[in-house]
Amino acid sequence: MTRALLVVAHGSRRDTSNEEVRKLTSRLSTKCGKKFDLVDCAFLELAEPSIPEGLERCINQGAKEVIVFPYFLAAGRHVVTDIPGEIAAVTSRHPNIDIRLVPHLGQSAQLVDAILGLATSDPA
Amino acid sequence: MTRALLVVAHGSRRDTSNEEVRKLTSRLSTKCGKKFDLVDCAFLELAEPSIPEGLERCINQGAKEVIVFPYFLAAGRHVVTDIPGEIAAVTSRHPNIDIRLVPHLGQSAQLVDAILGLATSDPA
Repeated sequence: MTRALLVVAHGSRRDTSNEEVRKLTSRLSTKCGKKFDLVDCAFLELAEPSIPEGLERCINQGAKEVIVFPYFLAAGRHVVTDIPGEIAAVTSRHPNIDIRLVPHLGQSAQLVDAILGLATSDPA
Repeated sequence: MTRALLVVAHGSRRDTSNEEVRKLTSRLSTKCGKKFDLVDCAFLELAEPSIPEGLERCINQGAKEVIVFPYFLAAGRHVVTDIPGEIAAVTSRHPNIDIRLVPHLGQSAQLVDAILGLATSDPA
């Protein structure tokens, strides 16, 4: 079974911000080992691909299971309502594909270590 | 020398989002060991304390060094311009306090592991 990870970010008018998400996606692809067969990204707004386009791209590449990860810090409206809504539209078209939303980044217990790492390293 | 860590978040109209930042600050305080003598948070807008208020709070508690950490995913205007501007106003009032800005969360190399952790754990 082909397993995909779709990183969903807000999207920005500044393309450098969107590019940061694409680079992160590329690093995830390199580091995920056998956990995922493909890693891609999508944007809620202001950038492409959209969430439905990103999901379809994964499915077109053979994904039978898509893990959708919200790259968001807070459980605001986007995380609670908008992203599940975008997913639901695709799920109804592809009932045999397992599309699953996981907790947003702000929920990670590992953030504390990431922050202490940044806060205590020597200035560049 | 008293060393403080000030977590700077955007701030939200939803107080539950601001509360998430306060909880993270509390976890950082518990986990930082001897790296910081105090950990506090401040908000760029929409919540309190403001960044200048947060810095003054650290200084009033005896901080001689304040590490300012931007809890932001992208290097947008807030990270590049607004936060340094808020800090500069306080620095000019306290030239003998070492106030230092460190890279924002989106720069952390540890994000990849945090994301893979969230994306591969069993659903709740």
